[in-house]
Amino acid sequence: MGMQLYDLAGVEPERRFSPYCWRIKLALMHKGLPFDTIPWRFTDKDAIAFSGQGRVPVLIDGDQVVFDSWTIANYLEDRYPDRPSLFRGDGGRAVTRFVNAWADVVLVGSILRLIVTDILTHLGEKDRAYFRETREKRLGATLEAVAGDRETNVVVFRKTLEPLRTILVAQPYLGDRAPAYADYAVFGCFQWARCMSPFPLLLKDDPVWVWRERLLSAFDGFAGKSIGYAV
Amino acid sequence: MGMQLYDLAGVEPERRFSPYCWRIKLALMHKGLPFDTIPWRFTDKDAIAFSGQGRVPVLIDGDQVVFDSWTIANYLEDRYPDRPSLFRGDGGRAVTRFVNAWADVVLVGSILRLIVTDILTHLGEKDRAYFRETREKRLGATLEAVAGDRETNVVVFRKTLEPLRTILVAQPYLGDRAPAYADYAVFGCFQWARCMSPFPLLLKDDPVWVWRERLLSAFDGFAGKSIGYAV
Repeated sequence: MGMQLYDLAGVEPERRFSPYCWRIKLALMHKGLPFDTIPWRFTDKDAIAFSGQGRVPVLIDGDQVVFDSWTIANYLEDRYPDRPSLFRGDGGRAVTRFVNAWADVVLVGSILRLIVTDILTHLGEKDRAYFRETREKRLGATLEAVAGDRETNVVVFRKTLEPLRTILVAQPYLGDRAPAYADYAVFGCFQWARCMSPFPLLLKDDPVWVWRERLLSAFDGFAGKSIGYAV
Repeated sequence: MGMQLYDLAGVEPERRFSPYCWRIKLALMHKGLPFDTIPWRFTDKDAIAFSGQGRVPVLIDGDQVVFDSWTIANYLEDRYPDRPSLFRGDGGRAVTRFVNAWADVVLVGSILRLIVTDILTHLGEKDRAYFRETREKRLGATLEAVAGDRETNVVVFRKTLEPLRTILVAQPYLGDRAPAYADYAVFGCFQWARCMSPFPLLLKDDPVWVWRERLLSAFDGFAGKSIGYAV
């Protein structure tokens, strides 16, 4: 039996949008490990109570239960060392943690502002109330205030991608000639937006767009075929 | 004979402040390769004309001439593979390029604003005119306008360090248990400021401060003993 992954879903069960779950789905594809996903909603806390916490991704691998995307990525690398490497060495693993942190801090924060009102439209009533309450508490502002003027915000957002753009002009992937976990850590954030929002984050002449297209096509179009918006 | 490195200097020949040269000096220490530095000023274009371009670092290793810090780091890694690795594997090398780009784009840009007026005070007359002219042209504003209100700017700057802070809470170096080129790429930017400006960029309770102290102490205090400000 393959692994099972609890995967955040919208009101439509096949709309899977968590940036953190996308990282792990692509890491599992990278390693060629079979898995099934179980749609899960923000408020289904009981369904993953066995993991000892309340957020996804949660991975079940036989008798192992692992949560937190960075922890799961490391688990997969260590448990399946003969499969294609996510980090290509200890140096890669150490420095990928910085890319992962950059994506968490810079990308998740700025993309949230750009797509937050669209996220609401794809959640069921109970999850919508939960999402609003938890995010407004965390951010100290209403979601509408956080969203602000997105035409202005997206220009700032595209500037924050400059380090990514610099490297993607020089090499096709963060992992160099082939994608690595650093790519999935960043791509998950764009995929989150693509699943939930018709608002265009990237311009077509941006090297980041070209890179994202490559990852949408990877693994026989695994991410590209998922329910989302073609933006 | 060891290598020779052309190293950017202020009006005092021992004030060596280039963030890019610092990266390479630490990379050479890391590899345990002996080298001498040659003080060089912005306007000494003739002295490095043999390299075919006009900026430092320029490294001379026997009959090899290498310039550009990223190119030099890769040269050292490939030419001296039996010495301690700067990247610890191909995965590390690929992803370190992102850290290097982040430091170039985010740190150099924001630190420049904070220290630009102090930089001027440490340059000779000819270099001061050159620095003002080239930077004002590049930035499209006077240096005084670029500097702006640094008490406000430093608060924003410290927020941009959050991805760095996140990883440095989890591991002592970007390279994990020991410093790697990713550390030197970032540290070089802080060392540039330390050499030129008494303005405090970091607070003492910041994990980034603690990490910087570790690097100031590395290699028998090589960077910490250099001429600069104890901030």
